[in-house]
Amino acid sequence: MPADDFVVTPWNVEGDIDYDKLIKRFGTQKITPELLSKIEKFTNESHFMLRRGIFFSHRDLNRLLDDYEKGKKFFLYTGRGPSGHTHIGHLVPWVFAKWLQDKFGAKMYFQLTDDEKFWSKKDMTLEKTSQFALENALDFIALGFKPENTKIIIDTKNIKTLYPIAAEVAKRINFSNTKAVFGFENETNVGMIFYTSLQSAPCFIEDMPVLIPFGVDQDPHFRITRDVAPKINKPKPALIHNIMIPPLGGTKGKMSGSNENETIYTTDSPETVKKKINKYAFSGGQPDIEEHRKKGGNPDIDVSYQYLRIFFEPDDKKLKQIHDDYKSGKMLTGELKEILIQKINKFLESHQQKREMARDQLDKFLLKD
Amino acid sequence: MPADDFVVTPWNVEGDIDYDKLIKRFGTQKITPELLSKIEKFTNESHFMLRRGIFFSHRDLNRLLDDYEKGKKFFLYTGRGPSGHTHIGHLVPWVFAKWLQDKFGAKMYFQLTDDEKFWSKKDMTLEKTSQFALENALDFIALGFKPENTKIIIDTKNIKTLYPIAAEVAKRINFSNTKAVFGFENETNVGMIFYTSLQSAPCFIEDMPVLIPFGVDQDPHFRITRDVAPKINKPKPALIHNIMIPPLGGTKGKMSGSNENETIYTTDSPETVKKKINKYAFSGGQPDIEEHRKKGGNPDIDVSYQYLRIFFEPDDKKLKQIHDDYKSGKMLTGELKEILIQKINKFLESHQQKREMARDQLDKFLLKD
Repeated sequence: MPADDFVVTPWNVEGDIDYDKLIKRFGTQKITPELLSKIEKFTNESHFMLRRGIFFSHRDLNRLLDDYEKGKKFFLYTGRGPSGHTHIGHLVPWVFAKWLQDKFGAKMYFQLTDDEKFWSKKDMTLEKTSQFALENALDFIALGFKPENTKIIIDTKNIKTLYPIAAEVAKRINFSNTKAVFGFENETNVGMIFYTSLQSAPCFIEDMPVLIPFGVDQDPHFRITRDVAPKINKPKPALIHNIMIPPLGGTKGKMSGSNENETIYTTDSPETVKKKINKYAFSGGQPDIEEHRKKGGNPDIDVSYQYLRIFFEPDDKKLKQIHDDYKSGKMLTGELKEILIQKINKFLESHQQKREMARDQLDKFLLKD
Repeated sequence: MPADDFVVTPWNVEGDIDYDKLIKRFGTQKITPELLSKIEKFTNESHFMLRRGIFFSHRDLNRLLDDYEKGKKFFLYTGRGPSGHTHIGHLVPWVFAKWLQDKFGAKMYFQLTDDEKFWSKKDMTLEKTSQFALENALDFIALGFKPENTKIIIDTKNIKTLYPIAAEVAKRINFSNTKAVFGFENETNVGMIFYTSLQSAPCFIEDMPVLIPFGVDQDPHFRITRDVAPKINKPKPALIHNIMIPPLGGTKGKMSGSNENETIYTTDSPETVKKKINKYAFSGGQPDIEEHRKKGGNPDIDVSYQYLRIFFEPDDKKLKQIHDDYKSGKMLTGELKEILIQKINKFLESHQQKREMARDQLDKFLLKD
């Protein structure tokens, strides 16, 4: 990787991502002001993640909305690779998906890919990924989904439903395709090589088009799905991509469970959150207070500010105030961190309660084959 | 393929197979007179398919029998790729497996790989292979298996049981392995690349060693299984291989559903059998009766004689008489063919009755996940 470059694949995100460049590299469409207005026609309100470009790119969203206007319903699908506890980065597409579900009255499928995480991580067992799948499902349910219109798929548990669809997809993908799209090598295990057909399967589970909100690093999977769709007489999935949530240590790469100190889990205690933010959150501030008051901070590279922008401060006015105060030097890094700590801990207090309540509801959400 | 050479892979059998060469090429063990005696110690009788070298090769059968003697039970597993109706070639390992089951009191699993045949044949649909799976199951049941100790696995129906086992196997196989063993290419679809893990899965379905009687062309799959077994703390499957059943047109290659005229199906009518044998069965006889009486026929290349030897004349004395009479010229090709037609039609009359009766029993045999 050249110093000024970045990598975005389903299994590796590195560097300082230039999202305009990524749109070109992946061949997706930028979400334009026109498209935002079009969405608002149906939703009657804008979502801060759309306004702020947290969801920044799409494929075929125009087509999907045009069809919707003509009365053609769609369903929603997103997912998670259960290799550990849920962190706040995972919640971004899920919260947005909930909003879409409410606004469009869409059925939702949530896929937990316990097989994929077992295959992609050397020391991971299938028992562990299956356990984490159930834990992650609690976080998803805690966001307010209802079992009437939301089904949770766990790959190894629901393989009976997924496999015949995945088989149709798998017949239309060859090793060259997976080499080109994922960079697979001769040493890649055959589970990984096959797996993308399983991630495609939920796209075709209902007899209507699908819209998938998800982190842009997963786009390669759905590029394959979209190539295969017409070959099995199905509509191409429409996609809407969110940016990567940066790790605490800086705005490069993405938050990832593989570095616990740079990750806020939904199961973290208030003390842990406080400690992690204070100790590890990369600051855009100046080395000392005097200089900070004079020169001001840089919110663009300040991770605490970015977390507020991406997730924890939906109010544009309040966010702008923080932005301006931090930039002018009026707000110190410690004060900014304190705002974020309060926000996260308030969110997590409520979330963790709902998460425990979700245990009793879990079975109602799990797809019955 | 050089003119004097032959090809044996799970998807292609061509040429005049030299089984001694094949043993060297595959690295299997020849079934020796010592091993035959050892088997007879447990079975108290020999089986004509063993005596005649129809089962000619093995892997680890000595180890399995030594363990059995010490009280370690094993189970049996074989299968079929359901791309069409069952033909008489398929019955060879199944009939032998039934004998093994009776003699060793072993539980039996029979796998129908509807996914694999869908992936390996361009124009095949999953609906068709799943239908053929049920049809093929009837032939298997008709051979006298009992639901108490015999379970039929259909890949797409029993994927819930198979998939977690296949996932463990798949993690330990990479694309290079499948290239080396199956000759896969970059253009091979990802279903085929993954599939061998599914064919491995039944080997590990019970917590005891397995013995697999099957056509030697499938050996590459189990070579992979045997490499993976110790990595997942399981015993290596023991294998016993039968020769390929030649097509009607000659002793090269194997009987295959892809050429209907050279194949006797278990669903063929007596008239069809008569017509196919008379018209297509390759003869080892001389061009005219006079020459035949003088020079005699060649039973080694005569397909009718080979079918009697492989399946339809278990009585060694009767077979020897036919052999000698044909070789001396006393028996004409037409007479030899007539013997085989009678034998096949007698077998099929009874088989087809049992096959129809099996429809009501089928559900009892199907593995419940």
